Amino acid sequence: MLLADIANLLGGELIGDGNVDLQDVAAYEEASPKDLSYVESAKKLNTHSDAGALIAPRGLEIGRPGISTINPRLSFARAVLLFRPPRKFQPGIDANASISETALVGDGVYVGPFASLASGVVVGGGSYVGAGVHIDQNVRIGSGCHIYPNCVLYADVEIGSRVILHAGVVVGADGFGYIPDEEGRIFKYPQTGRVVIEDDVEIGANSTIDRATLKETRIGRGTKIDNLVQIAHNVEIGEDCILASQVGISGSAKIGRGVMMGGRVGVADHVEIGDGAKLGAETGVPKSLEGGKMYLHTPATEIHDARRRIAVLRNLPKMAERINELERKIGKLES
Amino acid sequence: MLLADIANLLGGELIGDGNVDLQDVAAYEEASPKDLSYVESAKKLNTHSDAGALIAPRGLEIGRPGISTINPRLSFARAVLLFRPPRKFQPGIDANASISETALVGDGVYVGPFASLASGVVVGGGSYVGAGVHIDQNVRIGSGCHIYPNCVLYADVEIGSRVILHAGVVVGADGFGYIPDEEGRIFKYPQTGRVVIEDDVEIGANSTIDRATLKETRIGRGTKIDNLVQIAHNVEIGEDCILASQVGISGSAKIGRGVMMGGRVGVADHVEIGDGAKLGAETGVPKSLEGGKMYLHTPATEIHDARRRIAVLRNLPKMAERINELERKIGKLES
Amino acid sequence: MLLADIANLLGGELIGDGNVDLQDVAAYEEASPKDLSYVESAKKLNTHSDAGALIAPRGLEIGRPGISTINPRLSFARAVLLFRPPRKFQPGIDANASISETALVGDGVYVGPFASLASGVVVGGGSYVGAGVHIDQNVRIGSGCHIYPNCVLYADVEIGSRVILHAGVVVGADGFGYIPDEEGRIFKYPQTGRVVIEDDVEIGANSTIDRATLKETRIGRGTKIDNLVQIAHNVEIGEDCILASQVGISGSAKIGRGVMMGGRVGVADHVEIGDGAKLGAETGVPKSLEGGKMYLHTPATEIHDARRRIAVLRNLPKMAERINELERKIGKLES
Repeated sequence: MLLADIANLLGGELIGDGNVDLQDVAAYEEASPKDLSYVESAKKLNTHSDAGALIAPRGLEIGRPGISTINPRLSFARAVLLFRPPRKFQPGIDANASISETALVGDGVYVGPFASLASGVVVGGGSYVGAGVHIDQNVRIGSGCHIYPNCVLYADVEIGSRVILHAGVVVGADGFGYIPDEEGRIFKYPQTGRVVIEDDVEIGANSTIDRATLKETRIGRGTKIDNLVQIAHNVEIGEDCILASQVGISGSAKIGRGVMMGGRVGVADHVEIGDGAKLGAETGVPKSLEGGKMYLHTPATEIHDARRRIAVLRNLPKMAERINELERKIGKLES
Repeated sequence: MLLADIANLLGGELIGDGNVDLQDVAAYEEASPKDLSYVESAKKLNTHSDAGALIAPRGLEIGRPGISTINPRLSFARAVLLFRPPRKFQPGIDANASISETALVGDGVYVGPFASLASGVVVGGGSYVGAGVHIDQNVRIGSGCHIYPNCVLYADVEIGSRVILHAGVVVGADGFGYIPDEEGRIFKYPQTGRVVIEDDVEIGANSTIDRATLKETRIGRGTKIDNLVQIAHNVEIGEDCILASQVGISGSAKIGRGVMMGGRVGVADHVEIGDGAKLGAETGVPKSLEGGKMYLHTPATEIHDARRRIAVLRNLPKMAERINELERKIGKLES
Repeated sequence: MLLADIANLLGGELIGDGNVDLQDVAAYEEASPKDLSYVESAKKLNTHSDAGALIAPRGLEIGRPGISTINPRLSFARAVLLFRPPRKFQPGIDANASISETALVGDGVYVGPFASLASGVVVGGGSYVGAGVHIDQNVRIGSGCHIYPNCVLYADVEIGSRVILHAGVVVGADGFGYIPDEEGRIFKYPQTGRVVIEDDVEIGANSTIDRATLKETRIGRGTKIDNLVQIAHNVEIGEDCILASQVGISGSAKIGRGVMMGGRVGVADHVEIGDGAKLGAETGVPKSLEGGKMYLHTPATEIHDARRRIAVLRNLPKMAERINELERKIGKLES
């Protein structure tokens, strides 16, 4: 691809020779003269790169051909799509799929080998249902979804449009609820609610989203969830949240809009987290948190205080020695 | 359903008009006049509910029709089953299942599409084997089990009766054991034992239970395990335990009867935990713990002491300032 | 098997009667007179064992027939393989497998029921592809691999030889990368790289290894990974590492050779960990660590200091009381 054409497609401003012919994209340090890469600041330019061209912020002198844009990282992400367009699938129902007579499958849908759609299932147009995906009764899936192999959707789950479920995701398994009966034996609390996953959600491999006890577990539009994440029954997650890998959200927790969680954050049951809160990796949340703030550590604490706490924590043995010394000195003064 | 009939079925005492016609169950705040709900104490009644009828403790004045019982929450759980009975499955072997000639399948069993049963497998009467479940040689499954889609049972695993395995559960994968050989290379320790899962156990989606090195990994009768839980080789878990999501139990640990673990508890290898111990979420257990007590934090500490520790931990920066101040004062006194 | 023959096969020295006939292996305490077991030191001999024979270190007086070797535990592991040899599989493509016409399958390969191989897939000689495994386009798998049921390999993944993937492993799902666009909406960063898993790697059940953003995620030769582990995009793991269950490695982290991680270790993105580092269970690694050392706790700290820190942490409430007492005494001295 010619640099001039890429500049055009990205809506950026051409720098230097537009006839540079590029064949691929690469990270700055790893790029060859045939690669397009990007920089975000002058500092990066101190490191060498063989990149044939760079996407760069407006006004940055890059000493080679390139494209200037307002947000080079975003522009580069779009350039990746130009050089490495997502594979298109061939619509059609594989001869080895098992589709109930009462399932409704839209136009342009792919259903892979050994996938099964039970009675009453609806799959919207243009959706991809991978090999070995099992969809139980009355599940509704919107259009343009991509359900990777070996996902399992329990009965009555509702999935919006353009949802991506990576391999091994389980949606709608029973919530974890038990109650002792009169004899002290464990009685399984019926889990009869459902799960609603709104449009544009993406869920990572082997994550699990449990069905509600009575009503619904809901994942808001645009929310992105990483691998091996657990979302318990009755949880509500707002729109445009980001939950990194191994996060666990306990039952009936309510997460606002635009909340970000680093890896392995844990949220206790019934906790509410306000819009726009940001939680660092491994933050533990026993109680509700206000939105719009950054938190860290366990129990979750605003980041400034949490960092001070961690700094003291690091030096705890020294602190113990200082207390020993204080006691020695006081003893001397007292005698 | 008429309230009087429900009262009868639950063995409770009718309050007010038995002819109230109810159509569903709902949580107290979300209930409509057509819904049955419940309260556990007078305090809850300060909040408004449109519920047409309430299950309530004996003697509580609820100001509307209802049912009084000793344990309203338990009674309500039973009422949920009346209004929303579990779906019954149609027994039969799907035409797309693959069943070894030497597998024995009991009466009333369902085997879903693309499930496979290898040689020597036995499935007891009335059990459900979901789509895409793969059961390797000589696995024995009791009666009335429900194995959800895409579970994998390795060879020689033994499953009791009325066991529920949610989608994606893996039982019997090799335990994680290696030993350096003479050249310092990693030698795989053979994992030749098995797994026994006793009656009435339930295991959540995508959890993993490893086979033993030599003998057996065992999950006791009635124990309930949530999603994404790891049970390592040689672990023994007693009866009626409750393990919440993302718990990890390391090799050869022994967990007593009736032990409860909150989310993401971690137990080190060879640790023993006594009967009836209760471990709060994220408790880390490096050493054995006595039964009958509540624990929290890492390293696991009895709850009263753990809470005091956490309280001090929260205020660590203030403590550091107090020490600074003490040193300043002492310096002054000394000079 | 006769003890003399076992001694021969293990390359050890026979102790006592070589005609002892053994039928199985067992742990020291659980062994019967028909079992072979082992001891590593004289201390163990204070406990009773009915074992018919023992593998023991050279020079240890065991008071019964046995075999002396330099490394009894390693010798015993090899003896396990003699008594309980791994099941051999019958090569062949199951009639219910779905194999693309352009897939290449080597000699002696087994492909199970309901497994699918997409176009361009290559599977090396002697490999085992379990039931329900789905392998997308252009994946290359070496020889002698064992891919357990319901694994999913996304397009372009490369797997070496003698690799073991336990059930439910997902290799090559999209890395977790998003970037806000001009309107503040979440834009999915294309994940167009691949995954390379080198020879002799073993990966535990339901673990997930994400594909790289641009280039590759790589797991080094001989590395062993336990169940429910998350390896994010662009991560590089060296040779002969050991990662226990529930470990999480964030994006672009670089782990050296021979690194050992206990259960649930968490590593932040872009962190580098040097060769031979050993991290105790639940260690949290926010910053790069030098190799050759042992670390514990969060933030990761060299083990000696970490243990002192944990000791102080345990006694934090007592420390708070000592500070109260110091303040009281100082107040008294000042007045």
